[in-house]
Amino acid sequence: MLSEKHLLGLEHIKKSDIELILDTADSFKEILDRDVKKVPTLRGKSIVNLFYEPSTRTRTSFELAGKYLSADTINFTSSASSVQKGETLKDTAKTLEMMGIDAVVIRHSSSGAANYLCNHVKASVINAGDGTHEHPTQALLDMLTVRERKGTLSGLKVAIFGDILHSRVARSNIFGFTKMGSDVYVAGPSTLMPVDIEKTGAKLAATVEEAVENADVVIALRIQLERQKKGLFPTVREYCKFFGLNKEKLDLAKKDALLLHPGPVNRGIELTSEIIDGSQSVINEQVKSGVAVRMAVLYHLIGGSR
Amino acid sequence: MLSEKHLLGLEHIKKSDIELILDTADSFKEILDRDVKKVPTLRGKSIVNLFYEPSTRTRTSFELAGKYLSADTINFTSSASSVQKGETLKDTAKTLEMMGIDAVVIRHSSSGAANYLCNHVKASVINAGDGTHEHPTQALLDMLTVRERKGTLSGLKVAIFGDILHSRVARSNIFGFTKMGSDVYVAGPSTLMPVDIEKTGAKLAATVEEAVENADVVIALRIQLERQKKGLFPTVREYCKFFGLNKEKLDLAKKDALLLHPGPVNRGIELTSEIIDGSQSVINEQVKSGVAVRMAVLYHLIGGSR
Amino acid sequence: MLSEKHLLGLEHIKKSDIELILDTADSFKEILDRDVKKVPTLRGKSIVNLFYEPSTRTRTSFELAGKYLSADTINFTSSASSVQKGETLKDTAKTLEMMGIDAVVIRHSSSGAANYLCNHVKASVINAGDGTHEHPTQALLDMLTVRERKGTLSGLKVAIFGDILHSRVARSNIFGFTKMGSDVYVAGPSTLMPVDIEKTGAKLAATVEEAVENADVVIALRIQLERQKKGLFPTVREYCKFFGLNKEKLDLAKKDALLLHPGPVNRGIELTSEIIDGSQSVINEQVKSGVAVRMAVLYHLIGGSR
Repeated sequence: MLSEKHLLGLEHIKKSDIELILDTADSFKEILDRDVKKVPTLRGKSIVNLFYEPSTRTRTSFELAGKYLSADTINFTSSASSVQKGETLKDTAKTLEMMGIDAVVIRHSSSGAANYLCNHVKASVINAGDGTHEHPTQALLDMLTVRERKGTLSGLKVAIFGDILHSRVARSNIFGFTKMGSDVYVAGPSTLMPVDIEKTGAKLAATVEEAVENADVVIALRIQLERQKKGLFPTVREYCKFFGLNKEKLDLAKKDALLLHPGPVNRGIELTSEIIDGSQSVINEQVKSGVAVRMAVLYHLIGGSR
Repeated sequence: MLSEKHLLGLEHIKKSDIELILDTADSFKEILDRDVKKVPTLRGKSIVNLFYEPSTRTRTSFELAGKYLSADTINFTSSASSVQKGETLKDTAKTLEMMGIDAVVIRHSSSGAANYLCNHVKASVINAGDGTHEHPTQALLDMLTVRERKGTLSGLKVAIFGDILHSRVARSNIFGFTKMGSDVYVAGPSTLMPVDIEKTGAKLAATVEEAVENADVVIALRIQLERQKKGLFPTVREYCKFFGLNKEKLDLAKKDALLLHPGPVNRGIELTSEIIDGSQSVINEQVKSGVAVRMAVLYHLIGGSR
Repeated sequence: MLSEKHLLGLEHIKKSDIELILDTADSFKEILDRDVKKVPTLRGKSIVNLFYEPSTRTRTSFELAGKYLSADTINFTSSASSVQKGETLKDTAKTLEMMGIDAVVIRHSSSGAANYLCNHVKASVINAGDGTHEHPTQALLDMLTVRERKGTLSGLKVAIFGDILHSRVARSNIFGFTKMGSDVYVAGPSTLMPVDIEKTGAKLAATVEEAVENADVVIALRIQLERQKKGLFPTVREYCKFFGLNKEKLDLAKKDALLLHPGPVNRGIELTSEIIDGSQSVINEQVKSGVAVRMAVLYHLIGGSR
């Protein structure tokens, strides 16, 4: 049983809670290979996907996770919503709770939106990405994918590189992997590196090459092409040269190093197609782990175990 | 058993039909407090939400009502639809009927859209708001909320204030509460008051204060900030001064008067936060009643009782 | 059992596969008349509607077909999606597959999108319309509708008229009806007629009158008013005069000829309201056949029979 009612981030979660989620996800993953992908675990429970930013992967992943567990799922996206009517986040969430929703899966452009919400509703709140703060289920699925292949997370060298400054994926992964005993190294353009990055527990590498060298796990971040603000970002050409990963740079890592990316990949920018589709890539496996992790989180937060 | 196959409005509905819906909603409301919110009542029935205006609350409320009763629900919103192809409302509805839909829940900007539709399809039509005409399930949920607290609707003084001219919520509430034996008083800016308002059965009060004085129930309407047409509407500042409700004005009502609002509230405009979140407010309870009322309507229109 | 894992078009499908789908659809159609429209056939299977073009009818038809068979259905439309993030079609599909999706129903503006996809995913791919290429379930539902009324498709004269050049519906119908032994005649503005149309198996008629004369089946195509490109298209007035169908022209066909249209009809343009709503029209019946055909296709591609 989880010690918290919500999943807001990995910074303050207990290590034993991470282990419980990963263990449960392992057993749920097997359901995805079945001919009949449906168990009655969350029958009669309702989940709302409250997404204020567009997302296919995460929303669909949560929606399927809910359906595989027989929950009812409702999508609420900002395009067809009360946002046009000026309704506040708190009032929206309270409304959903009064309708009998058991869990609110929220994605929002403001850091802290999920934390804010959990003070105002009785439903379980699951952070599906809030601003540049955290995206805990993404990190959990990365950890599940790595643990399956490596057997443990303890003692691994994990390299994360890209736009660390704006990446909630990076933050959650740093907290999560560090907590599980990995050594996390980060690299990226200096304009996109938080000045106090080492306070998160990560170690700062001067170059991508230094971060990747001898690594067990290499996590590329997405460049948010649609979010680029002039000035901070290098050009795409510059980014590719210094921070794009190709076979040559990946070969600096251990022979059996795993390559991860939260997706969708900008092919030829963060990673070359050769390594995206290569034998070290577990990018597709991450997607499968994502559904399993979200099933596990939903199960522990609103299922019978609470 | 309801005497009609459709729910188009409360102007012409029988009093006994209102009572039947409210009684059924009472018993369904209890399902919303259960751990497993699902009964098989409408299994194998299909409901389409045919929404030509954006709406979170009403659409989600109907969607959940359907799901809690195990019906299949389909959302059709104008943004991703055949409206772009110039399809008529009648042809759209006929198409949905041929696909096996049992109930069409329609929201439309034209007054009379639901009435028009019910002449062209065999499915049950439920009006979820048509122009400035009616919004019967909103009024039913208001009545359910009040009846639970007051025990009866008969002999109550009900004050409704705001933009009466454009409010389908006001019209349905006037028809409904009056039919159940309440005395309904309306107040609002003179430019937003229909000249023949007393034909609806409501009594015209000169000021909000006069309407609210000694009332058992106070219903604030939403200002449609997004719909304001210059000329008719006072400024927001003027509106607040004369028609906004605060603690002082609410204290003119009975000590145990209930405060309702169809939501979402423009905080600080129609109502102050103090009274929205105060002890007389049943605004959240209204949301819960909404799901229960819609379950009751769906049950009686397409369930076993017909 | 179907000989293929995907349904990409009717050009290369076996005649026996068409017959199997139509026979199965016949038996499923009966479910749509039941009080409880739900069978557990595809319980635990998941279907994604991957629609890159707006569509009410086809998407809703597939969604209901899935739900009636108890499958889980997920909608993915381009408006709220990763398309904004530059994700490729292949990566999107691979992602959905990793999430455990059994069938991908795809609509796309590019001819060949479905064929491309089936080389990259293990899930079954169903073409719901790709550019100007094919729309096989539309043709299958047309054939089902005709076969029910005529008893056979063999030896029928089928007239198809309108914008043949851009019509995936025309192409699939030509391939399908021809394969089943019908004689297919096409007519339309010369600027909207492919030069090599007779290679498809259709016979070119000089005028709509010539095509319709003595026909058993008359299929009007939709003018894509929203897609008109100046130059190729006649004006709407010219189109009506030469290619619009009215009672007088329809009377050139056999007395018991059937009138079909894929919908939604531009009333008064392709067809007059008199014949749309007349006794020979099976346009509404087509919609019902559509759900049944899609149930049959889903059943054979991802159901127990594979």
